[in-house]
Parts: sequence; structure tokens; C-alpha cells
Amino acid sequence: MADFEPRNPNYKTFVEGYVSSQRYLDLIGAELARVEPGLAVYRIPYREDLGQQDGFFHGGVVGSVAEGVMGAAAATLVAEGANVVGAEYKVNLLSPASGVALIACGQVVKPGRRLIVCRTEVFSVDERGAQTTCAIAQGAMAVIEPRS
Amino acid sequence: MADFEPRNPNYKTFVEGYVSSQRYLDLIGAELARVEPGLAVYRIPYREDLGQQDGFFHGGVVGSVAEGVMGAAAATLVAEGANVVGAEYKVNLLSPASGVALIACGQVVKPGRRLIVCRTEVFSVDERGAQTTCAIAQGAMAVIEPRS
Amino acid sequence: MADFEPRNPNYKTFVEGYVSSQRYLDLIGAELARVEPGLAVYRIPYREDLGQQDGFFHGGVVGSVAEGVMGAAAATLVAEGANVVGAEYKVNLLSPASGVALIACGQVVKPGRRLIVCRTEVFSVDERGAQTTCAIAQGAMAVIEPRS
Amino acid sequence: MADFEPRNPNYKTFVEGYVSSQRYLDLIGAELARVEPGLAVYRIPYREDLGQQDGFFHGGVVGSVAEGVMGAAAATLVAEGANVVGAEYKVNLLSPASGVALIACGQVVKPGRRLIVCRTEVFSVDERGAQTTCAIAQGAMAVIEPRS
Repeated sequence: MADFEPRNPNYKTFVEGYVSSQRYLDLIGAELARVEPGLAVYRIPYREDLGQQDGFFHGGVVGSVAEGVMGAAAATLVAEGANVVGAEYKVNLLSPASGVALIACGQVVKPGRRLIVCRTEVFSVDERGAQTTCAIAQGAMAVIEPRS
Repeated sequence: MADFEPRNPNYKTFVEGYVSSQRYLDLIGAELARVEPGLAVYRIPYREDLGQQDGFFHGGVVGSVAEGVMGAAAATLVAEGANVVGAEYKVNLLSPASGVALIACGQVVKPGRRLIVCRTEVFSVDERGAQTTCAIAQGAMAVIEPRS
Repeated sequence: MADFEPRNPNYKTFVEGYVSSQRYLDLIGAELARVEPGLAVYRIPYREDLGQQDGFFHGGVVGSVAEGVMGAAAATLVAEGANVVGAEYKVNLLSPASGVALIACGQVVKPGRRLIVCRTEVFSVDERGAQTTCAIAQGAMAVIEPRS
Repeated sequence: MADFEPRNPNYKTFVEGYVSSQRYLDLIGAELARVEPGLAVYRIPYREDLGQQDGFFHGGVVGSVAEGVMGAAAATLVAEGANVVGAEYKVNLLSPASGVALIACGQVVKPGRRLIVCRTEVFSVDERGAQTTCAIAQGAMAVIEPRS
């Protein structure tokens, strides 16, 4: 992974606010577990109402955290006053997302001026803490510059 | 859109059960509004806890219904006893998903033996009922054959 | 399909120049068969050196024309002096691309200020002229504004 | 990267044949530079007829080698007598693919029974040998089992 320099010295506070203002993340119980320049990690404990027909995490939950954590990763690298919104993403679901929690790890690959391209790896965690990659994603967040 | 012949004469009952067994769809308030061979429509009324920072539907909700409704559309075409699971999908978010409801319309493009390729169009609906396309998606559902 | 108004009155000439300046399109024999506001069509006659192991069009050819024709479709809608470059795209290969020619039809879905989102349908054409959809694609072209 | 065990002891010979039978790879001058279990690398020297309007590698070339090398990587892991065909892929173009050569490195992420999910990183190489990531891709190859 590349080494990124944040443009906003208060990027952690900004990303925490970015995450906590998103009511949907609260609805699905996503917690920001880690934030570094160019990287963010969400953790989502399993709940029955996040499930699909077989009692695993629903693919929609997996996909939405895969995309959501790209937003948080991208948000670490924008200038003060700027913001990010999702433009596009692609998810491959690799195996049933069973277990006690999901961990979604988003990383910036290319912090462009207008598009920040990211990749995500989503792991399912079993009772013993063993992690299995259950999805990978790739996408771009659009940068919203502050109005001048 | 192509004209598809369902292999399961009870496909409507099957898809209704497929949808109602997914607890996550219940969590976000997605209702199956229409189901035809090769087509399914979800409707999701706006709620604050489906929002992001600006009060629009969260991109994760948009993406998860875009993918979810592909599953329902694909489920209309599988044989009795078979099932579908998400394999991969791609979403382009086109405009802020504001308004009183989302409508996600999933259609089968190619019902392969192992992969069913689908497209989705997601509309946001304003108070007057006017619809704006807010996302398009494309992806594949994997067919799970019944164990013989 | 939506009805688009070109911003450049000479959009046809611009798109023809855009296409003819791309040496790779010449290498694979892609011809611009049609151009309208928000729409472009390429035609690629079969040649053995465009094939893969089974004598069909190579998936790389199918994908590259699927993406290339999005560029031409997007180019119909930019202002005079602006240009487009590919940002991202996604292809689903539906069936073997056999036959005497490929036809790739690209359409603009959303002409944003910075990203133009498009969809493509690629058909293979047999000796009798019958067309089969062999791939669908979805992606975004980035708009390059003229330097002021 | 995971450590993969090839199921076909003659996987190198198989992959070399898989690559050399694809006429299109010959047309664009792609050479198989490396092959290991779960990994393949193509190298494509620059030629003017692989270019676009600005003299860089055409996005279609970049995308087609990104997809093509996933096929070679996936082919390292199939059983004797089996084969792979492209099912779907997604490319993000990160920067102009300028330079004297492209290097496309494909890796298997998940070797499923029916779908082999892969990722690719494409580098452009300048005259001094410095590499810049110019594209990333993610997709799935379908496994074709031998007829029994």
C-alpha cells in the first residue's frame, strides 16, 4: 500500500464526523474501527436483521459496507472543506458472509483531483476470530470541492 | 426487454418467499412491488435512518436494493428447487437519491445455466410522483441447483 | 433512451476526428457506423487475428469496443474544445462472440458535468445478419474541459 | 497473496498453449512474461498502432490485457482438461498509459469451482524502467469442465 500524506491536518475528526452523520451506518451497526491516511476500517457485528435467507450477512449489507468504507478511506485525503460522494463501485461476493462480524477494509489506490479510486476487502470473522475474505470491491469516489 | 418463460410455474410464490425470508430487506423497508418473468421491482419509502449526511438515501441503500432486486428478477427464472445467490455487481450512482421513495427495477438480460446476468435501474420519486434515475447497475447472480 | 441536445453544433465532425485519431481502432478494424447525440455505433468485421482459441472474437476485443464506443457516444455531448477520456467500465460477456461481425452500440445514460455515464450493448452478427447480444457494459467517461 | 496449489501438474505448458492460441494477443504483441500458480504477467511493448489520440496506449488495449491476464492467471489453477472463459470484469483507468511498455499482473483471489475471481494491476513502464500503476481491474473467469 502506498504512503499517503493527508491534506487536512484534522482528517481524523473530519472522517469521524463523516461517518457519524450517516444514519444508515448507524442502522446497520457499522463502527469505524480504524482510520489512517488512505485507509479506513468498519466493523459490523452480526444481527439477525442484517441477514438473508440462510442466516448469513445479506449481500446488500456486504456491498454497502464495501462501498461505504471506500468513502471513509477517500475522506482521509481530501482538503479541508472538501467532501466525497460515491460515484461507482463493483463488488465480487466470494463466499457466504457467515460469522459474528464483518470487517471491511478500504484503501485508496489513486487519490486523483476529481476521482479517488479505492479498493476494499471484506472479511467475515468467526467466533474464534479467524477471518475469511468474503468480498472484494473496487470503485471511485467523487471529490466535492468547497465553494469558493 | 426479452420475453422470458418461467421454468417454475409457481415462480411468484417462490420469489415472494425469497424476498420475505431476507431480514435485511425488512430492515430497510423494501417491498416487492411487482414480479413478472425476468423482472422484479422493489419500493423503499424514505426514512431518516436510511439517509446519509445530506438527508438523501444512502448510497449503500441504493446499491443494496440495486443488487437485491437483481436477485428477485433472477429468481423468477430458475427451476423449481433451485435458488440464486449474488455473485457480482456494479453500480453507477447518477444523482442524489432524494425524495419520498426509491423504486428499483431489476431485469434479466441473459438467463444462463450457471449465471443470470441482470440490469437494474433505480429511480428516486418526489412528492408529486415524478421519477429520476438515480443509479444504474449490472451484475450476475449464480444459480444454485437443487441437490439431486 | 433520453433525447440529448448536443452542446457542440459540429459534434459529428468532432466524433469522427476523435475516432479516426485512435490508431488502435484502426488496428482492430472498427468503423464508426452511426453517430447521433448521445449514441455511437461501431462495426468490426471478423478477422482471424481478432480471435481467441475457439475462433470467436477475443473477449479483449469485445471489451475494448464496448468501452471505446462509450467514448464516442460521450464525445457527442461535450462542449466545443472539450474532450473525453475513459475513467472506468464494467463488462459482462454473455455468449461466445461468433459470427462475421461485431456491432457495439453505446448510449449516454447521464451526461454529467465531470462524468458521462454510458451503457453499451455488443451484438454478434451471423452470415444471415441475425444479431445476438454477446456483451453488455456500463461505465463512465471523464470530461476534459478546454484550458481557459 | 495466497499460496495456491495447481491441480494440473503441467499447468505451465497448459497456460503457454492457452496464451499462444489467442491470435488477438499476438496482434497486440502481448508476451507471457511470467506464470506461477495463481499468477500471470503479460508484457506489451509500445507500438503506435496500440495508441489513442495522445500517443498513449489506448484504454481498450489496457482493458483487454487487464482482462486477458486474469484468464491466464485463472488457467494456472484449473484441472487437467478444464478451461476458462471470461465472464465479467471491471477496469478503473488511473493515469495515462504512457511509456515504452505495459506490464499487466493478474492474480487469483478466489479459485471457486465455477468462477475464479481475479485482480489485475497494470503498470506503464518508462524508458528508465520506472513503473506507474495505470489501471486496476477485478473480475471473474468461468471454469469450463471437461466433458465426461
